[in-house]
Amino acid sequence: MNPELFLMIPGPTPVPQAVLSALALPPIGHRSTDFKATLKKVYPALKKIFGAENSEVLLYTASGTAAMEAALANTLNPEEEILVLSCGVFSHRWADIANTLGIKVHLWQVDAGLGHTPEALAEKLAAYTPGQLKAVCLIHNETSTGVMNPIEALAKVVRAQQPETLIMVDTVTGLGAAEFEFDAWDIDLAVSGSQKGFMLPPGLAFLAVSARAMTRHHQVCRPGFYFQFAKQLKSQHEFSTPYTPAVSLIRGLEVALAMLLEEGLPNTFKRHQRHQKMVRAAATALGLKLLVEEDSFASASVTSVLPPEGVSVDAIRAGLREQFNIVIANGQKELLGKIFRIGHLGAIFPRDVLMTLSALEVVLHQAGYKQTPLGTAVKAAQQVYLETHDYE
Amino acid sequence: MNPELFLMIPGPTPVPQAVLSALALPPIGHRSTDFKATLKKVYPALKKIFGAENSEVLLYTASGTAAMEAALANTLNPEEEILVLSCGVFSHRWADIANTLGIKVHLWQVDAGLGHTPEALAEKLAAYTPGQLKAVCLIHNETSTGVMNPIEALAKVVRAQQPETLIMVDTVTGLGAAEFEFDAWDIDLAVSGSQKGFMLPPGLAFLAVSARAMTRHHQVCRPGFYFQFAKQLKSQHEFSTPYTPAVSLIRGLEVALAMLLEEGLPNTFKRHQRHQKMVRAAATALGLKLLVEEDSFASASVTSVLPPEGVSVDAIRAGLREQFNIVIANGQKELLGKIFRIGHLGAIFPRDVLMTLSALEVVLHQAGYKQTPLGTAVKAAQQVYLETHDYE
Repeated sequence: MNPELFLMIPGPTPVPQAVLSALALPPIGHRSTDFKATLKKVYPALKKIFGAENSEVLLYTASGTAAMEAALANTLNPEEEILVLSCGVFSHRWADIANTLGIKVHLWQVDAGLGHTPEALAEKLAAYTPGQLKAVCLIHNETSTGVMNPIEALAKVVRAQQPETLIMVDTVTGLGAAEFEFDAWDIDLAVSGSQKGFMLPPGLAFLAVSARAMTRHHQVCRPGFYFQFAKQLKSQHEFSTPYTPAVSLIRGLEVALAMLLEEGLPNTFKRHQRHQKMVRAAATALGLKLLVEEDSFASASVTSVLPPEGVSVDAIRAGLREQFNIVIANGQKELLGKIFRIGHLGAIFPRDVLMTLSALEVVLHQAGYKQTPLGTAVKAAQQVYLETHDYE
Repeated sequence: MNPELFLMIPGPTPVPQAVLSALALPPIGHRSTDFKATLKKVYPALKKIFGAENSEVLLYTASGTAAMEAALANTLNPEEEILVLSCGVFSHRWADIANTLGIKVHLWQVDAGLGHTPEALAEKLAAYTPGQLKAVCLIHNETSTGVMNPIEALAKVVRAQQPETLIMVDTVTGLGAAEFEFDAWDIDLAVSGSQKGFMLPPGLAFLAVSARAMTRHHQVCRPGFYFQFAKQLKSQHEFSTPYTPAVSLIRGLEVALAMLLEEGLPNTFKRHQRHQKMVRAAATALGLKLLVEEDSFASASVTSVLPPEGVSVDAIRAGLREQFNIVIANGQKELLGKIFRIGHLGAIFPRDVLMTLSALEVVLHQAGYKQTPLGTAVKAAQQVYLETHDYE
């Protein structure tokens, strides 16, 4: 017999029982009064999570990638120029989508495990004339490496040097894990998805849109149909949706948002930060190398670790899966087989991190890695737990 | 935000998601064809779990205590004499119930943490004339202390010295955790309940009945109504129930029994045995005293540990509950506040034991018990895990 599958990956993340119960309710009509009541709670709550109470947050039945495309397609015309800051698979996706849409991409890529600093960005932007870049596309948390970028500082640099440019942020795996202030940081478009910090199954995408982005939207020639901002916004202002939405997921979202707001976002962030420190301390205690060496770039959502010499990522993942039914992630693309990624995003708690690290030690031991005594990783994580008193 | 409540107590035990899903199905009529189909699977499967394929297993909508009363009331007349082997709160219950029914009880009690040996029982029985004892009441697993009695050996002694006596066994928290062979060990009545090794919520009781017990049943003057063996058995032979049963629980039971039989009982027992060894090794490594010192009496379902001096059981339980949402049990009656009990019964897996021990170490540390370095308990449990290869 096996325990339930436990997802220690950066999405999909575990879904709390209360949310599962809401998902299991029979569907109601999407034009019903009951569903309108749900949307009346969901729309304002989404704004709170994004820190976008003076802006709009659009809710799409789609994946996060669709919302990235919607952000680009609704605000840019073909041939316009953008700068994409890439530090991995997901930040590079801004460029992939933009290329498909005929937008002219300037790509600035850094090595895996690194993020972007405001200093380097300021230098980079100096090469462009004011107004040349219609958008700068960033990523908050790069899921493929576990890098978290300093969005507030980066946005400030962009705004100073390209005042009219649209700042687009993929915060699919950042939102709900670390501070993100859409209005206060003067962001124009920000994307997230339900299966991450929102503690839901996949199927919903969220897109925060500033007044500046809405103005641009009215100037583009082909904003598309299903994702068109104006239509979507008109419906949302009536506490409705333009087309049939994923009703059950949105009822689950109502519960999940209430849980997040009850915990209080500062507490949610501290919880994620604590897990990150526990995992990093454990990996270091085990003598393993972290892909993201600099603490300042360390993700609150996912931690990438290099396996010890002679032990394959496949063996580690298979051991955890087969013996403990715990799932961790492999690396992606060039990092496949080079790192394993432990997700600590969403409804994850210290006991889950301790459990995963205990099991990881067993699996490493079985695979022949015995350089540190059993209990070493757990001890390091326990110590971090005991020292992080500030979490309520 | 808190993780889901995790029950590391000797019942109720965690309920697997597949069973929860079955419990959440809309009720069906208890006289429907669909429910008959469920009973056709459940009744034979229960016999397999008890090792009672040549006997009967009655299914009651009631608690385990009710089935104990049913066992006594259906097979004994007032004034008849029985011997009760008591080693804690639950084995003593045989005597409490029998007294209420006007049955004459000879009580043989041993100290908390001890069980009964066949040698001592042989000596004890020598004091009674053949035929004097109409029943001998035993307990398989004494939940209040974590003692597991050698039922096979004890039953053999009883049968040798009092051939016609009824052997009654409370295996409420023993069944599904350790070997129990109703037919092969020549037991006459054996009781269990749904919220234990059966991985269900409370509400169902199971009572295995031998041919010898059925014969006695037909000779008693007041067998009662709801729990009457003859009526119950007649219905069960028609794959029905005499009165309205807990339909949803029985549909959950169908799923849980299938899971147990798929794992294979020998594997289930090894899994429980492994957890017992992990917890005992961890407690010992922490320098804590086990209530049940002899390995031969150590329960596969629950382990009782004495807290270190200066640390209260309340503090340990509160720490685990408040910080990790893990529930362990206090002692009962005279043992209240003197021991804490870690349940490892039912749908519990090595990762859960590692998680609980990791959290326990943190809580002991916070309470000022720092005699062993952090990680010590987990290390001991990890070592046991690695050494117990025979579990599949």
